[in-house]
Amino acid sequence: MIVVMSPNATQEDLVNVVKKLESMNLRTHLSKGDERTIVGVIGDKKIIANLEMEMMAGVEKTVRITEKYKLVSRDFHPQDTVIDVDGVKIGGNEIVVMAGPCAVEGLEQLREAAQAVKKAGAKILRGGAYKPRTSPYDFQGLGVEGLKLLRQVADEFDMKVVTEIVDREDIEVMENYADILQVGARNMQNFQMLKALGKSKKPVMLKRGLSATISEWLNAAEYIMAGGNENVMFCERGIRTYETFTRNTLDLSAVAAIKELSHLPIVVDPSHGTGRRPMVAPMSRAAIAAGADALIIEVHPHPEKALSDGNQSLKPEDFQKLMENLGEIAKAVGKTI
Amino acid sequence: MIVVMSPNATQEDLVNVVKKLESMNLRTHLSKGDERTIVGVIGDKKIIANLEMEMMAGVEKTVRITEKYKLVSRDFHPQDTVIDVDGVKIGGNEIVVMAGPCAVEGLEQLREAAQAVKKAGAKILRGGAYKPRTSPYDFQGLGVEGLKLLRQVADEFDMKVVTEIVDREDIEVMENYADILQVGARNMQNFQMLKALGKSKKPVMLKRGLSATISEWLNAAEYIMAGGNENVMFCERGIRTYETFTRNTLDLSAVAAIKELSHLPIVVDPSHGTGRRPMVAPMSRAAIAAGADALIIEVHPHPEKALSDGNQSLKPEDFQKLMENLGEIAKAVGKTI
Amino acid sequence: MIVVMSPNATQEDLVNVVKKLESMNLRTHLSKGDERTIVGVIGDKKIIANLEMEMMAGVEKTVRITEKYKLVSRDFHPQDTVIDVDGVKIGGNEIVVMAGPCAVEGLEQLREAAQAVKKAGAKILRGGAYKPRTSPYDFQGLGVEGLKLLRQVADEFDMKVVTEIVDREDIEVMENYADILQVGARNMQNFQMLKALGKSKKPVMLKRGLSATISEWLNAAEYIMAGGNENVMFCERGIRTYETFTRNTLDLSAVAAIKELSHLPIVVDPSHGTGRRPMVAPMSRAAIAAGADALIIEVHPHPEKALSDGNQSLKPEDFQKLMENLGEIAKAVGKTI
Amino acid sequence: MIVVMSPNATQEDLVNVVKKLESMNLRTHLSKGDERTIVGVIGDKKIIANLEMEMMAGVEKTVRITEKYKLVSRDFHPQDTVIDVDGVKIGGNEIVVMAGPCAVEGLEQLREAAQAVKKAGAKILRGGAYKPRTSPYDFQGLGVEGLKLLRQVADEFDMKVVTEIVDREDIEVMENYADILQVGARNMQNFQMLKALGKSKKPVMLKRGLSATISEWLNAAEYIMAGGNENVMFCERGIRTYETFTRNTLDLSAVAAIKELSHLPIVVDPSHGTGRRPMVAPMSRAAIAAGADALIIEVHPHPEKALSDGNQSLKPEDFQKLMENLGEIAKAVGKTI
Repeated sequence: MIVVMSPNATQEDLVNVVKKLESMNLRTHLSKGDERTIVGVIGDKKIIANLEMEMMAGVEKTVRITEKYKLVSRDFHPQDTVIDVDGVKIGGNEIVVMAGPCAVEGLEQLREAAQAVKKAGAKILRGGAYKPRTSPYDFQGLGVEGLKLLRQVADEFDMKVVTEIVDREDIEVMENYADILQVGARNMQNFQMLKALGKSKKPVMLKRGLSATISEWLNAAEYIMAGGNENVMFCERGIRTYETFTRNTLDLSAVAAIKELSHLPIVVDPSHGTGRRPMVAPMSRAAIAAGADALIIEVHPHPEKALSDGNQSLKPEDFQKLMENLGEIAKAVGKTI
Repeated sequence: MIVVMSPNATQEDLVNVVKKLESMNLRTHLSKGDERTIVGVIGDKKIIANLEMEMMAGVEKTVRITEKYKLVSRDFHPQDTVIDVDGVKIGGNEIVVMAGPCAVEGLEQLREAAQAVKKAGAKILRGGAYKPRTSPYDFQGLGVEGLKLLRQVADEFDMKVVTEIVDREDIEVMENYADILQVGARNMQNFQMLKALGKSKKPVMLKRGLSATISEWLNAAEYIMAGGNENVMFCERGIRTYETFTRNTLDLSAVAAIKELSHLPIVVDPSHGTGRRPMVAPMSRAAIAAGADALIIEVHPHPEKALSDGNQSLKPEDFQKLMENLGEIAKAVGKTI
Repeated sequence: MIVVMSPNATQEDLVNVVKKLESMNLRTHLSKGDERTIVGVIGDKKIIANLEMEMMAGVEKTVRITEKYKLVSRDFHPQDTVIDVDGVKIGGNEIVVMAGPCAVEGLEQLREAAQAVKKAGAKILRGGAYKPRTSPYDFQGLGVEGLKLLRQVADEFDMKVVTEIVDREDIEVMENYADILQVGARNMQNFQMLKALGKSKKPVMLKRGLSATISEWLNAAEYIMAGGNENVMFCERGIRTYETFTRNTLDLSAVAAIKELSHLPIVVDPSHGTGRRPMVAPMSRAAIAAGADALIIEVHPHPEKALSDGNQSLKPEDFQKLMENLGEIAKAVGKTI
Repeated sequence: MIVVMSPNATQEDLVNVVKKLESMNLRTHLSKGDERTIVGVIGDKKIIANLEMEMMAGVEKTVRITEKYKLVSRDFHPQDTVIDVDGVKIGGNEIVVMAGPCAVEGLEQLREAAQAVKKAGAKILRGGAYKPRTSPYDFQGLGVEGLKLLRQVADEFDMKVVTEIVDREDIEVMENYADILQVGARNMQNFQMLKALGKSKKPVMLKRGLSATISEWLNAAEYIMAGGNENVMFCERGIRTYETFTRNTLDLSAVAAIKELSHLPIVVDPSHGTGRRPMVAPMSRAAIAAGADALIIEVHPHPEKALSDGNQSLKPEDFQKLMENLGEIAKAVGKTI
């Protein structure tokens, strides 16, 4: 940490700052410029992490040099992490595609969707059993019944299941039916749930919060890893900006950022990320070109009848066509699909 | 709802759209313009709320006319709601001030803070027992021990307690110690917790999410009211924007927006809203001038020693001075403090 | 400036960084932490301002300590600047109100508006002769004809004129008719125009760009002052955020920020800042409570017939009522109106 | 346009609204719902474009159905426009790469850069002669001298020149030296300059404003086309969001949006779009995969000595490597490079 003294700070102010730091067993280095003195602070990172110096007389501001997260950082774990989801590997040389309807609506719908996406090459079945909805009057999902359908249909087609968890009390029951527990954007900083997921044996897919910085996102993953669960993957799903043409602004530079800062895999969700069906294919291609490890795509056998998010769901035939094209992009970045 | 057909829509597309709507017992009105036909949709609001028409052939887009929330809306409840917090009334003619430290750190700190803020005119003691922190390595609060201290000290000074709830499992224990349960920005769309708070007898203060729209915020309150708890107040605490000089951008026009759209009271938090001590006083004045019903302000007896948010906490003497000034602003808008 | 070396930087990298800095006659101070070395850079501010160190091997990032602006800064000019607009003083103890229609539409409209706002207490007449409009097919203003009407009507009612300049070629003609030249949000970083305004004798009102940071705004004012024109006032008019209920998000904390960082006056525009007529009054009150020196408000004698921005314009009778109320708020912050 | 009446509107309000619309030769269609009446407005688009109805008694809000731009719209011009830049075609099957330094610093630097980028496959030389800089004390470019160097060096290597115009007075001189006139983000809504560029014979590259919506961007291009210049290309260069890890947030979904809404070509600038050298390559790949027609990339022979933006400039050897890789991505989307 660096403490920047104000131009009007007195010698006494400076002495007090140094004294306070030394009383906490931290070392200091002074740089006296023409207008300001700058104090470099060196020592135990945990003590520095909790320092609050800006209230002291003569202090203009402080600048943190190091991030607080550690386990998720590539600095501490240079090689890529590959997560084994019951045989399906995420983070390696093969791009994995998760697909299925936004919400589980019934056996027939789910089976039809699963059959189509499996045939096109998807390995993981997605579908919401618990749906976080803006309005209390919107369809809230089938709950445990939906989980059971997901498991049944996934097994039928030899697929894995990813589905969203919205309450830490549900972890146990979800572990019985799902292979990946998805933390939604609205819960990215539901810290109690993150801590509880740190004790789970299941891989966690952590979606980026609606307006989460890269740093906050990495720290959220740190909560899970600090609890002991090392199988965390990120999922970029668009951030909130002033633009209204798209539902969210899909931030593909986040893929490059995560690859630079962390060893964990990253998934991209072009369906929620854009909210517009015609954009799903180009953004899927772009995500792979940017370095994503996996995609999660909404596919509904009859999107015009969907109970939620119909206008961002692909039809099976569009998904099939997209998958055929993605192989070439994957090849261009040295991967397979 | 209005369905806008695309310029290329065929007569058959239009017939299909009308058929689908009529099959759901909705009525339609067609307006044929030079380029586009527009279909007005009339009927049961709940059915309309769940309509997904954008996947149908020939449909360009749909425009929703009405919001989904109802109980929180001023349309359905024109007069202002006044919430009685065990004798302290929020939403009426008297502006209520909640004050205290960001986090409860110990008996002495809390007592010193409470004494100071009570003397200056605050009626409600604030302080976090459970702290949602970006990093797992930051101070997470004293937990139940903190709740007990809050109750003890508030009773000593004849004050009420407002404190944050971070897990729906804590509702019962918190009801024993707190008078207002605060939902933090990160949990504004933790819908399971909102539903559970709908069953609580305690007033709830719902902070605006970091990037929540006014509409999402009202819908989040609707979750609580739909559960049966009518004592909900909003709290504007700054939104996330591109600006970095302030910690958040305090959106005081949200005060006017809430007053226009809802009958529920609104509190303003200038401490988190700006993150800078010198801004707390001007923004407190502005909040009252804009029509806020209450303020929640961080005051720490020794901000330079605070375990969190020291640089946005007022010292007791600054808080005292601010309170003296606020009376004049209150008077200018026809209120007292 | 501080140069933060990466954890993997070699001793040679560090030596090269120091050599480069010393070759530019800058001095360095090293702080060696457990993981990183930090290099403090001291010396001529102009040289430091143009330093680009992040491309050098071993450099993780750089942190700038000081802002580049100087003439606008309160550090260099502690006392408030009061701008004398031909007898009307902005930045002093009296709050000045500028009012009038969005666009000059004709003599009758302007005269009716001027009469009403003058009677209610406004001292400066606003009105656009050149209108920057999103679409080329929107009404673009009356041009020089509008300027002449503004001057004529202002003189009739003993008022001053503020109006927007959209092209640096217009400076000379505008100086003949206007008392304050307004730089609109879309031109805040039209640097050629700012430089030219630095040579003008007329006061300039610099509106904040749609997504300008406080720092960029101050630097834009620095362009004008660096040219020799010391009469610059800021105007907060709302920033662009994700919120759509209001046209922009009026950032009243910017008032406090400008007062802290600069000696120049600040005006608030609640009409464009909210885009909604019912919000103009509460936001005007809040602006004064936050410390604004002046307000600029849209008033149209017949807003339902306005050629632009009718839905944010006050009617004369509403403006009259607002002005009566503002006096009490002004008094509460020790000012008059 | 649709006029939504408020639930409290009287029959008289409705009659007045209809009368006003009919007095302007517009036709109306009423849809009476349970709570609200909705008025569909049909007729001359130009008249509707300028309607301001929200001030009328009983009107809750209005909803515009159609955008105002026309010439840039794919609706009116379904096939892709290919711009011929003196033999280099942008918008067709071949992806064009523009490359060179951020600012022209001198003959040697420019020649070294041009040689490198030409060899790697770039066809257009970029470089700023006029630099819009946040601070007046930053390097402002070499001006006409820089233009001459650009022309000279481009001719030497058989390249075309793209460079930024910052003042409409410079159009004539720039036309003598440049092949594409670039409008920077800060001038996207400098409408006087856009109008003047409508009269130019040179192709224009219109960068997206820092916080411009897709709709505003299309309307800005409409200004140029409405003046008679049909050779307009868009350039996505990142938008301003809350994220600070990257300099801007590169919005690649804008590529898909422009392709859907317009027939004009789109260029992507991954250098300014991210501000970080290691992200330029993955974002270049992603841009092509998303459907971009061209890229503009900063390359500096010695980025550690650059006078601006060194930390986002590629070294020649990195650019060479990138170009080799881009061919495979282009092939995967059916194009060449």
